[in-house]
Amino acid sequence: MRIIVCGMGVVGQSFLKLLISSAGNLYKNYGIKPRVVACIDSKGIAYSPTGLDINEILAIKQEDGNLSRYKSSLLNSDNPIEDIDAEVFLELTPTNLSTAEPGLSHIIAALRSKKNVITVNKGPLALSFSSLIELSEYNNAMFRFSGTVGGGTPVLEFAKHCLKGDKITSFEGILNGTTNYILSRMADGLPFAEALLDAKNKGYAETNPSLDIDGDDAAAKLVIMANWIMGYKVTLKDVDKTGITDIDPEEFIKAAKEKKAIKLIAKCNNKELFVKPIAIQKDDPIYVNGTLNAVTFKSEHSGEQTIIGKGAGGMETASSILRDLIEIKQSMLNYRTV
Amino acid sequence: MRIIVCGMGVVGQSFLKLLISSAGNLYKNYGIKPRVVACIDSKGIAYSPTGLDINEILAIKQEDGNLSRYKSSLLNSDNPIEDIDAEVFLELTPTNLSTAEPGLSHIIAALRSKKNVITVNKGPLALSFSSLIELSEYNNAMFRFSGTVGGGTPVLEFAKHCLKGDKITSFEGILNGTTNYILSRMADGLPFAEALLDAKNKGYAETNPSLDIDGDDAAAKLVIMANWIMGYKVTLKDVDKTGITDIDPEEFIKAAKEKKAIKLIAKCNNKELFVKPIAIQKDDPIYVNGTLNAVTFKSEHSGEQTIIGKGAGGMETASSILRDLIEIKQSMLNYRTV
Repeated sequence: MRIIVCGMGVVGQSFLKLLISSAGNLYKNYGIKPRVVACIDSKGIAYSPTGLDINEILAIKQEDGNLSRYKSSLLNSDNPIEDIDAEVFLELTPTNLSTAEPGLSHIIAALRSKKNVITVNKGPLALSFSSLIELSEYNNAMFRFSGTVGGGTPVLEFAKHCLKGDKITSFEGILNGTTNYILSRMADGLPFAEALLDAKNKGYAETNPSLDIDGDDAAAKLVIMANWIMGYKVTLKDVDKTGITDIDPEEFIKAAKEKKAIKLIAKCNNKELFVKPIAIQKDDPIYVNGTLNAVTFKSEHSGEQTIIGKGAGGMETASSILRDLIEIKQSMLNYRTV
Repeated sequence: MRIIVCGMGVVGQSFLKLLISSAGNLYKNYGIKPRVVACIDSKGIAYSPTGLDINEILAIKQEDGNLSRYKSSLLNSDNPIEDIDAEVFLELTPTNLSTAEPGLSHIIAALRSKKNVITVNKGPLALSFSSLIELSEYNNAMFRFSGTVGGGTPVLEFAKHCLKGDKITSFEGILNGTTNYILSRMADGLPFAEALLDAKNKGYAETNPSLDIDGDDAAAKLVIMANWIMGYKVTLKDVDKTGITDIDPEEFIKAAKEKKAIKLIAKCNNKELFVKPIAIQKDDPIYVNGTLNAVTFKSEHSGEQTIIGKGAGGMETASSILRDLIEIKQSMLNYRTV
């Protein structure tokens, strides 16, 4: 199985490490012999049609910080994503919720050249979900994005595979670990600025934390879930969104008195699609602290189920890419036998 | 798809109702046209090779309390489970953890006659897991039991399908709703006897509650999970088991002071297999109150995930049978195309 890895940050590198450590099991259990034919970052493209030495790529990335060594590679192409032969293209560049680029162009190029695509990049899905699904169907290519919601926690798989024969009627939850950490600290009595600083010091918040604290990251995940699980056709601008920057400190005191806590809740049903700070009961299963994420699905017959897990992390997110890869392999096999 | 329903209690009747309301979707989404050819209870067998009128069966069960009207049915057979032609046999009689009967004999008869089997009966699995799996493989029949753990909450499916490519190394959780309700009330200050009475009045505890309060029900579920998820070969007698009847009331006060609560925890890893009351932190994701169940799975790469839901309920458990039925149908289709 020939794979192109585009984006060599924490997730990309974790995935390559996971491929090395899982090689034996992947072949034994799923018949997958992965061959990474290209690694792409913003500075260069390492390419080998017979498969790169992954350990070498990881060492060079470690040493140089990028793949500029491969600037003038053997590859002679203006459209490497289209021209390189591969079964699977991994889009792992950072999320951009304004333009979705460069991820969006990468995914379009890969699907057009009939490559199956796996991404953990929320931008393209938050802005162009329907058209990307259409493009993948038109080109008979599979498109998977488990890692976009919940990191390593299989939130999308749970909703799609574990409730067969039933119908999910609504869901709500905490989809952003950074804001959940900040709100947990504020419930302990810290003012917003100090809680944010604490989150930055612990590496939970970016230098520019606006994607998290303005609610955009949670809204992007909500859009992906609403489209994929509920079959809605919505984009980021359809979400009624409020961040956590302007919560009156009195609200925390009031909530605590009522055995509640303020959480940034994302909710989707046939009337509402919102992200906003809400006081929830402390014995609600989605009441989790720290950087945890939690989602409750409500179904017609099987009741309410909650799934809780870490919403981020390099190796955790890499494990979701591996799950997608296995699903693609299994679908390819089924397709052949029909 | 011809189905035999054996056991016409709350779950059996809920399943028949669910079949009626889901008929359209089952055909549209999965190509399943269910035909219930026999309904069996302790008093009689309703049988029709062309399919029973389910509404009529439900009405008779409602009116008479049993199927004794069909005592002398058209069916002329000493071994109806073996002799009736059907693709799927549902074993829904009550759990018996001493002998596993009559469920065990029913399942063996069905598998021997090459019928696929779905059960929500914990007894046969808790006492004879490995030999039933072997028997099903030998006869090329599928054997599914999603409803034995978590009721409608897809705990087994989550562990089997949502963490592909990863390896679950341990799990622990609250697997019995009745004892969780009692312990929640005891944490509020009620003595054991009063909490038990309250659970009985609310319909959460049986007249003879020993299966729950002695930890046997949780231990049976633990055995099923240890075998199915972890690949162990264990039975009920391998579980180190303590119930909730002898907890010192001081323990509740001590736990509360440490922001903990006492829960009946079932745990499985490569060293331990136990059910016992343990004080857990209130911010642990498996800390749930009332009749909820909760399980945390720990995996090699994707971290820790918790799944929470109601562990019982007629319609909820019926929805798990429907999921198993769909999985059997899909496997039958795949098998044919190979």
